[in-house]
Amino acid sequence: MPAIERESIVPFGAAATMKALVYLGDGKFAFQDKPKPVIAAATDAVVQIVKTTICGTDLHILKGDVPTAKPGRILGHEGVGIIEEVGSAVRSFKKGDRVLISCVTSCGVCPYCRRLMFSHCVDGGWILGNAIDGTQADFVRIPHADTSLYPILEGEDEEPLVMFSDILPTGYECGVLNGHIAPGSIVAIVGSGPIGLATLLTAQFYSPAEIIMIDVDQKRLDIAVRFGATKTVNSTDGKANEAIMTLTGERGVDTAIEAVGIPATFELCEQIVAPGGYIANIGVHGKPVTLHLEQLWDRNIVIATRLVDTVSTPTLLKMLRARKIDPKKLITHHFKLTDIISAYDTFSHAATTGALKVILER
Amino acid sequence: MPAIERESIVPFGAAATMKALVYLGDGKFAFQDKPKPVIAAATDAVVQIVKTTICGTDLHILKGDVPTAKPGRILGHEGVGIIEEVGSAVRSFKKGDRVLISCVTSCGVCPYCRRLMFSHCVDGGWILGNAIDGTQADFVRIPHADTSLYPILEGEDEEPLVMFSDILPTGYECGVLNGHIAPGSIVAIVGSGPIGLATLLTAQFYSPAEIIMIDVDQKRLDIAVRFGATKTVNSTDGKANEAIMTLTGERGVDTAIEAVGIPATFELCEQIVAPGGYIANIGVHGKPVTLHLEQLWDRNIVIATRLVDTVSTPTLLKMLRARKIDPKKLITHHFKLTDIISAYDTFSHAATTGALKVILER
Amino acid sequence: MPAIERESIVPFGAAATMKALVYLGDGKFAFQDKPKPVIAAATDAVVQIVKTTICGTDLHILKGDVPTAKPGRILGHEGVGIIEEVGSAVRSFKKGDRVLISCVTSCGVCPYCRRLMFSHCVDGGWILGNAIDGTQADFVRIPHADTSLYPILEGEDEEPLVMFSDILPTGYECGVLNGHIAPGSIVAIVGSGPIGLATLLTAQFYSPAEIIMIDVDQKRLDIAVRFGATKTVNSTDGKANEAIMTLTGERGVDTAIEAVGIPATFELCEQIVAPGGYIANIGVHGKPVTLHLEQLWDRNIVIATRLVDTVSTPTLLKMLRARKIDPKKLITHHFKLTDIISAYDTFSHAATTGALKVILER
Amino acid sequence: MPAIERESIVPFGAAATMKALVYLGDGKFAFQDKPKPVIAAATDAVVQIVKTTICGTDLHILKGDVPTAKPGRILGHEGVGIIEEVGSAVRSFKKGDRVLISCVTSCGVCPYCRRLMFSHCVDGGWILGNAIDGTQADFVRIPHADTSLYPILEGEDEEPLVMFSDILPTGYECGVLNGHIAPGSIVAIVGSGPIGLATLLTAQFYSPAEIIMIDVDQKRLDIAVRFGATKTVNSTDGKANEAIMTLTGERGVDTAIEAVGIPATFELCEQIVAPGGYIANIGVHGKPVTLHLEQLWDRNIVIATRLVDTVSTPTLLKMLRARKIDPKKLITHHFKLTDIISAYDTFSHAATTGALKVILER
Repeated sequence: MPAIERESIVPFGAAATMKALVYLGDGKFAFQDKPKPVIAAATDAVVQIVKTTICGTDLHILKGDVPTAKPGRILGHEGVGIIEEVGSAVRSFKKGDRVLISCVTSCGVCPYCRRLMFSHCVDGGWILGNAIDGTQADFVRIPHADTSLYPILEGEDEEPLVMFSDILPTGYECGVLNGHIAPGSIVAIVGSGPIGLATLLTAQFYSPAEIIMIDVDQKRLDIAVRFGATKTVNSTDGKANEAIMTLTGERGVDTAIEAVGIPATFELCEQIVAPGGYIANIGVHGKPVTLHLEQLWDRNIVIATRLVDTVSTPTLLKMLRARKIDPKKLITHHFKLTDIISAYDTFSHAATTGALKVILER
Repeated sequence: MPAIERESIVPFGAAATMKALVYLGDGKFAFQDKPKPVIAAATDAVVQIVKTTICGTDLHILKGDVPTAKPGRILGHEGVGIIEEVGSAVRSFKKGDRVLISCVTSCGVCPYCRRLMFSHCVDGGWILGNAIDGTQADFVRIPHADTSLYPILEGEDEEPLVMFSDILPTGYECGVLNGHIAPGSIVAIVGSGPIGLATLLTAQFYSPAEIIMIDVDQKRLDIAVRFGATKTVNSTDGKANEAIMTLTGERGVDTAIEAVGIPATFELCEQIVAPGGYIANIGVHGKPVTLHLEQLWDRNIVIATRLVDTVSTPTLLKMLRARKIDPKKLITHHFKLTDIISAYDTFSHAATTGALKVILER
Repeated sequence: MPAIERESIVPFGAAATMKALVYLGDGKFAFQDKPKPVIAAATDAVVQIVKTTICGTDLHILKGDVPTAKPGRILGHEGVGIIEEVGSAVRSFKKGDRVLISCVTSCGVCPYCRRLMFSHCVDGGWILGNAIDGTQADFVRIPHADTSLYPILEGEDEEPLVMFSDILPTGYECGVLNGHIAPGSIVAIVGSGPIGLATLLTAQFYSPAEIIMIDVDQKRLDIAVRFGATKTVNSTDGKANEAIMTLTGERGVDTAIEAVGIPATFELCEQIVAPGGYIANIGVHGKPVTLHLEQLWDRNIVIATRLVDTVSTPTLLKMLRARKIDPKKLITHHFKLTDIISAYDTFSHAATTGALKVILER
Repeated sequence: MPAIERESIVPFGAAATMKALVYLGDGKFAFQDKPKPVIAAATDAVVQIVKTTICGTDLHILKGDVPTAKPGRILGHEGVGIIEEVGSAVRSFKKGDRVLISCVTSCGVCPYCRRLMFSHCVDGGWILGNAIDGTQADFVRIPHADTSLYPILEGEDEEPLVMFSDILPTGYECGVLNGHIAPGSIVAIVGSGPIGLATLLTAQFYSPAEIIMIDVDQKRLDIAVRFGATKTVNSTDGKANEAIMTLTGERGVDTAIEAVGIPATFELCEQIVAPGGYIANIGVHGKPVTLHLEQLWDRNIVIATRLVDTVSTPTLLKMLRARKIDPKKLITHHFKLTDIISAYDTFSHAATTGALKVILER
């Protein structure tokens, strides 16, 4: 890694340090000094973070669920900022430009990138705040800047854009597009947390007839109604399956979206999908699930998994700029970056704090 | 219903009986006398069977695996024949016409039929030799004849057409189309039995770069090579997974087709599918399988199940008539219908008899 | 045509007459007595018309533009009604059922119907009020009733349903679907008459970023804004091309929809379509147009034509029943069927009367 | 730009010249000395040409039909070669690598590239031998080398690869893919010249039932039969339309491919396309054509134009490497690059020389 070497040659005594949220292993983390990142390849940019946020995946890393994220790593893969410096091969950006950071890094050259599957870029994919240092810091180094950053327009509000780094493309690509939502569809979204709600917002682009939201938390279901859900099912009683079948005249749903990441919610999707329907998985799963092929082999269903490619980001930005979506609905709390420990506390206790997405600002 | 009236006018004492293969429950069956079928609805046809065959699914019924098939049922859902009689509403066929029988009955009117999902027709689907009497008999009643039979051309050989009742559309729709096989694809077909081989034949319509055939029976793999497989893997050692990864430069396959119907073969598909790839299930499963979402959630894969719709039958017949497929390759044995018990014996001991499809003739 | 024969055998003196709008040739028509239609084939239904309407195509017939519509023909291909009688093979409907009449008749059996291209049904297509008598009458005979009528729900308002016979499926299939409108698209609809406005209503199912409406009639453009257009261009000055290019930053539109039917409006679509874009033709053209392939050969564009298949009717009805569309917006005037001559007058002078769709009631 | 600096360091008096085919305007051209190209941007490569060829488009340039190609331009947009030098930002190639040159330059970053429409790349597209100097020379500068060149495998024959620069992707993308050729299709290709024959070769990847080749030159039709055409029509008598309708039972073809570029051949496609069919335009048109919308508005057809994107090149290379296509069939003549004037003479008199593609070698 040339980056490591270069970091080591920062001259002694230089003021090239910054503050960052660092994963220390064993569930521990700290907001501490780290060297300010520098350009390590000609296609890199260094971005000063203006606003960032915390993702459920960050909590997974803290629990040790993501083996590629080693202790010492700066977390975070979302945010907007200002270009501080660009490598010699960066063509689209220059110092001072305001940019949106994509959670997925794309080299633009490898076979996966050339088929628009940026998630599996051989020199990128989801590496930020995972295999390389991330955005919960004063500065971040972004590899392949030309194909991993998006320009912010003159005068455009930065805050809603933070929702376009990850949560909105994830809900849209993994849930809405993979779920083949279409006008007139009956859709069920299992999980009314931030990602389920982001899916709910973008599902409406395709005008389904019904969007049924399922969760154990009544407060989140109430939010879902305000976000556009047409029906809700509180699954606390373990009978969501029956409730959905009743709501759909025993037919089931055209699209069932898993937005939790545990076996029970995936199996609920298996139970409620109608013949000819789709199951779109968004959840990050740590365990296998039981696929009831003895019931599903002749049901003509399609199950899709996906790590977000962020290939839809240009489309989603058009929708924002056409005022067809209000991403600020997802933002419940604001903190200074220096208060990031409190922000993690608020975010990780969502049941009591009601947190969806928290904004961390410079 | 005029059909009911017609039933009532069958003359007393008439020799309206025929021979048929009847499922008796508890793994037992017999070739015995049954009443010759009559028109029961205006849209019915009665067809005299000229040639039929035995399907792996018939063996499942005998084992009691298919609860909708009750004792007393005449088995069989494939065949060609001659129209004996049509109901008053049948417009496309008349007595004496030669016809191909589709294994799936389609009413042409219900919402599933109107979206080309004939498998789930509310008054049809796979009912022949299952919920209603089937084709392993001298005569069969075909409901919704206009939309469930296909005309045989003047002078056209009947025998290859028997392969178009079920096995070729099943391999093509559930395997090839659901597997999104495309020019240049790397395809693996797990299971080199009749349905795996039918899939192999029709997969070549899309010119994949490689078709790797996997089975424990070396004789069937040798047949696969003659049918067009570019590589074979004998999975007797339980290391097919490793062999496939080696063959594909550790990348995996674009399409993995499950053509067996047991957990081990489905899980093999999970192991060998490349990021962005497809798993197409053809097998009839009696048990759940383990879906390793902890490995697959971020692999951007698609899994599809399907009961054949037979929507591709017109296309497949065009391919036959353009000499782009030779279905006779699948036929290994011939019997008189009166020798059907021997035919079942031969078919069910394929490992020793080498049977693929057996033809039963009048 | 057995129907003709049967009509002629209606016994003398029978009270089986009705009122109907009859095309007399040479631009003339009259509201006059005609024999009440009878069942001519087992798959027919006779429907008593409750509400019908007038289509721009009816005016084309009066002008002699539609050679298949011969003098003596009862006009009209839209409407809702009550089943008066069904043929013996009709399974889905019975006397007294309320039904929506599709403008396209589909046999459900022919190769075109089996690939969902009902418009080219070999025993149907657009024949109502064209090759056979139509709906601007007290009664109409509907061939292939099972696959050409849709049930009206208990308690459902009939009036908006009249818009689902033709104008909404036409706008949706020929314009929106053929135009591949997608979230974030820039769309231009050339022609803000009833069909252009129906397209505008259904285009919003896919959440385009912009819908630019183009017409010479400012009143219709003002209506378009109320229906959801984001921008309008009055093309009276012959410079709509330039206006669109300015509005789109000289890039052009992703989808250009022709909803007029003359060379000038089609060529405008050619001028404004962006590279990679779609031209969807809805207009009924009487003359050839000039296709500027010298400019378009390398622009990667797609041009689609279509006679509505009405394959989307079930989807559109779901959207109505989910309250995602308000078709009553299209209805500007009401008349008794007995006042149909006045209704034609109002409809054909839309520029002064402001008529969009007129409802004719029993 | 470091590249500029490098240009300035070419030593005075160095023999940095080469031979090249230069367009001089007014139909004139010469094989003459030109400066050897140098790296002009960090993403450039300079490639030593090993083999190149002549395209019909080169003849168009000579006639003055391509205004972007100015006098002084080195022609040619096809070829294979050896990397001579790379700019500092080129990551995928190094001096000495053997490469295939794509006729379309793609920056990999712009909105068109990010939707796989490389033909309209804002800093590329078809510029080689057109807006910038081309490949009919000893050396060529290739901008955006990482995304515009493909590696040649160790030991791989270079000659067939020359067919993958332009003619095979053009036939495949503009003809086969845009024509939606599918198993069982009836296809007509109008024009049996090199591009029509390249389309014929790649059309077979989708196993159409029939490929009917149409031309006025019987020798080219005879070649087409050897390349896989199932039927041919000699259109010398001006009645190809009638012949095709007879061959298709008066139904027309599913896909009509225009591979000539004049109004008569495009209008033939309009006449022979069946309802629901596709017209795919490959020809480079210099004049408008008449689109008979008065006949086609209700035929449910799709017309597609396209400048090749070369997005299919990886797929086509897989097909070559799987031995599913033999591109050498297209090569009829070989010349030394120094004999390029003779090669042009042979290529431009194809009717007498029988030339399809000519190879020019170092």
